[in-house]
Formats: sequence, C-alpha cells, structure tokens
Amino acid sequence: MTKHTIPTSQRDVDAFDFEEPSEDFFKAQESTHIDAPRCALIVLVSDHSVRSGKDTDRLIAELLSEDNFKVDGVVEVSKSKAEIRKAIETGVAGGVDLVLTVGGTGVGPRDLTPEATRDMLDKNVPGIAQAIRSSGLACGAVDACTSRGICGVSGSTVIVNLADSRSAIRDGMATLTPLVHHLIDELRRASMDV
Amino acid sequence: MTKHTIPTSQRDVDAFDFEEPSEDFFKAQESTHIDAPRCALIVLVSDHSVRSGKDTDRLIAELLSEDNFKVDGVVEVSKSKAEIRKAIETGVAGGVDLVLTVGGTGVGPRDLTPEATRDMLDKNVPGIAQAIRSSGLACGAVDACTSRGICGVSGSTVIVNLADSRSAIRDGMATLTPLVHHLIDELRRASMDV
Amino acid sequence: MTKHTIPTSQRDVDAFDFEEPSEDFFKAQESTHIDAPRCALIVLVSDHSVRSGKDTDRLIAELLSEDNFKVDGVVEVSKSKAEIRKAIETGVAGGVDLVLTVGGTGVGPRDLTPEATRDMLDKNVPGIAQAIRSSGLACGAVDACTSRGICGVSGSTVIVNLADSRSAIRDGMATLTPLVHHLIDELRRASMDV
Repeated sequence: MTKHTIPTSQRDVDAFDFEEPSEDFFKAQESTHIDAPRCALIVLVSDHSVRSGKDTDRLIAELLSEDNFKVDGVVEVSKSKAEIRKAIETGVAGGVDLVLTVGGTGVGPRDLTPEATRDMLDKNVPGIAQAIRSSGLACGAVDACTSRGICGVSGSTVIVNLADSRSAIRDGMATLTPLVHHLIDELRRASMDV
Repeated sequence: MTKHTIPTSQRDVDAFDFEEPSEDFFKAQESTHIDAPRCALIVLVSDHSVRSGKDTDRLIAELLSEDNFKVDGVVEVSKSKAEIRKAIETGVAGGVDLVLTVGGTGVGPRDLTPEATRDMLDKNVPGIAQAIRSSGLACGAVDACTSRGICGVSGSTVIVNLADSRSAIRDGMATLTPLVHHLIDELRRASMDV
Repeated sequence: MTKHTIPTSQRDVDAFDFEEPSEDFFKAQESTHIDAPRCALIVLVSDHSVRSGKDTDRLIAELLSEDNFKVDGVVEVSKSKAEIRKAIETGVAGGVDLVLTVGGTGVGPRDLTPEATRDMLDKNVPGIAQAIRSSGLACGAVDACTSRGICGVSGSTVIVNLADSRSAIRDGMATLTPLVHHLIDELRRASMDV
C-alpha cells in the first residue's frame, strides 16, 4: 500500500533530491545546445534529373558545409506540389534545422515550390527572401531576383526556397546562411524558454 | 417658436455669412495643417520590464524628437497579441500620426507583434518594412533584417514595427522617419480633399 | 462517300506527311518566337486628366520603346477599382506582354491600383516591386519607395504598377525592363513546352 501513501508528485521530488547544479553548468548546457551542429536537408525540384546533369547537389552540399551545416540528405522530386510538400515535411518531421529547396520558383505553370512551401510555414520571414532577391539583382542572377521563393519557419525548422541557376545558388547561399543561423539561434533559445 | 421657423441648416449658413477668404488664406491653412507637429506613440513589447533595464524608450524618444516628432506617450505591454493590439488602437483612436512598436518581431512562439498589427491595418505599405530590413542587413542588425515586422496605415495613423536591439532601433529610425513623414503628408492631404 | 471512309484525324496525318524538319529549324523557330517584339499597354490612373497636363504617357512610351517594347495603346482611367481592372483585363485578353499602370499606388482612400491588380494576378512576383521600391529609395523617389504597387503574371501578360512622379517613372522603368524581359522569356518558353 506504500504506493498510495506517497503521492506521485512527492516521489518525483524525492527522485531529484540532489544539489542544484551551478549556474555555470546551465550556461555551458545552453551554449552547447545552441552551438550544436546544424543539419540541413536539400530538396532538388525539377522535371529533369538534376543530379546526373548539373551537379547542383554537390555544389550546394559544399557551400552548406563551408557554412557549418551538416547535410542530412538530398531528395530529388518532380515539380509536383504534393511531392515538394512531402519532401519538406520529411525534413520538418525529422527535426532538421534547415530545409533548402532548389528550383520551381519561376512563373511557369509547373513552378509551384512557393505554393508548396507556404502550406508548411508557421511563420513567414520575408527578410530572407528579400535579401536573396536583392543580392541576386546586384550580382546579375535575374532568376534569383524574379524568384517567387519564400522563407520561413515550420516547427523548429527554417525553410528557404532558392532558384536553380548556379549563380542564384552561389549568391543565394552566401546571403542566406548568416540569416538562417540567426533564426536557428532564436528557435533554439525559444525552445529552451518553454 | 422662432426655433422652428429657422431650420438649423439655415442658421449655420447665416453664422458663416461673411466674405470668402482669399486663396492665399487657404494655402496658408493647408501648409499649416500639413506642417503641423507630428505626434507619436511608442509601444514597447516585451515580457521583461524594458523601461527599467535597457533605456530603450529614452533612445527612441530622443531619435523621434530629432526627427520632428512629439512623443505623446510610451506604453509598455507584454507579448500578448490582445495587449499589443489594444495599445495600437489607443494610438489610432487618439489620432496620433505614428504608432511605433518595438519588439516581438522574431520567430519565437511569443513574437506576435506583426500579427497584432496586421489586424489593425487598412493598407499595408511594404516599402517601409523592406527599407528597414534592407538597411538592417547593410549595418549588421541581423534581428532587423530577419524581422517579421510590418508597416502600414490605419485611419490617419502610420504604424511601424521595429525589432528591439539597439542597432535595429538606431538604424531603423534613421530609415523610417523620412518615409513616414511622406506618408503623413499624403494622409493629411487626402483628408483635406474629402 | 469518301468523306466517311477517311476519318478527319487520318486526313490530318496525311496532310503533314513530309520529312521532319531539322533540329536547327526548331531552334530558329524558338528563338524567333522568344525574340518576337514585345507589346505593352500603358494604363494611366488619375482623377485629373494626366495626358493633357503632365505628358506622362509620352515619357513612358519613349522609355518603353528604348527598351524594345512596342506601345500597343494608352488608356486613361479614373481612380476607380472597376475601371482600372477593366483596363488591365483588356491588355491581358489582347495578349500584350506587359500592362504598365501608372498612379493610384499611394495611401489615399482613392488609391486602389494594387487592389485592382491583385484580383487579376495568377502569380505574384514580389521581386520586381521590391526592386522598384529599393531603387526608388536610392534615387530619392519617395513615392516609389512607399508605393503599394505590386507586380506579377496574368495568363501570358506581366503586370507592373508604378507610382506617378516623373522620377518614379524614370527610375522605375530603368529597373523593371530587364526583369520584365526575363519574365516574358520564361512565359514564352513555358508556352512552347505545353
């Protein structure tokens, strides 16, 4: 009958009956958590096989790892809204820090990456898409400048749409990584507050 | 019974029965109206007491008065959508020219200033938010660049959301004041046309 | 009775029974189609008669033809949402490559060009409006920077809203034409894929 004489809450307190860790311990924990490696999923959106032809995935993986992202995977999907969405969902559900889509941001009838992404976003962060378009204009990547790509947050994952020319990728990556790192910091800090 | 023989409208006409003022008079009136002092309400959005700690309100008040705004008041609210909205409404109902919110523009779960502001806007003016993000990027205020803050018009009041780092405030204020003055000119001119 | 023995489809095949054209032929066709002259419709939005007073239409027509657009027509409409929309529809239905509206992008109660345009867009292309606002800010065209104008695609037509000061027009035209040409290329290529 001891089960009933000590209520659950009391037992929990007993179980944690040790000295409180120092403030330094928590600070160390926190900075460890915030500085923990950042994982990225690459989603290549194309009606042609990108991988074989253009080597896009290798370029992006290189640029991501230069900026301290660990590439968790590369998914290749056709220009179908459902497929794009499913690929993004895989990343979000898997808890990656960044899902980076490439392609499908133009004005053609089969360019639906922004629409698929919008459905997934909890919060739109227009400043990243703006920065990518703006520096695309400056460096002459016209597809980046007219890209309909959007950026934002879904759960604890940042999602970014890039256009798929090589200059759009090179310039876009240089622009987006510091901003995305800032958002990831914010998201990790918020998750510790709750 | 004279009350009934002269209808109210007739009496009004009689009361204003004097010579028409010259065109110069109207022009002087108009420029007086347009150049009349501009009033601002500051809304500090934070879950911690900002005023005591960071001196944010004094910085903003200083920058506003340098740019010819009279600070009508400073309201401090928690990160609650309802409270933020209520504070903005007070400013709009009171007819201030500018409501400037500071804070709550990030991607954390309790960052809801843009959502509270959106409900209040008659017209969104994306160019001001864009200019703030763009110059935030240039000056290294990352929170300004990734800010979800929006800007627009409610009645005859301009509403602007700022991020709350000191550099976001300093740079944002320098960027927004000339644009806001232009909008206030436009709004005052439109109110005279009606 | 031969009419019935050879079905229509068979006759079509017969009619085209010749050698396949070479790949060069198709390439030439394609580049001809893509490089074909681009037609533009100008829509002047104003409650005053713009044409007589400000010579706006001549300025825009000049700038358009310098950038390889053929001006198909100039329509002058009042600041009524229905009228603006109808004018844009005329251009889209007529298959022009670009509908360029001028005016009605401010925050006054009768500034409704963006609202009329939004109803017409299949796809919003925020990068063009962004580029126009951004270079407006740099060149001191405050009305361009605070413009609520939007840009996008309706059918095979690109629609762009400009503010109506002369500097907004001059600067805006310089900014938008290369981006619009890129979109027209994309739209023409997409129409050939289908």
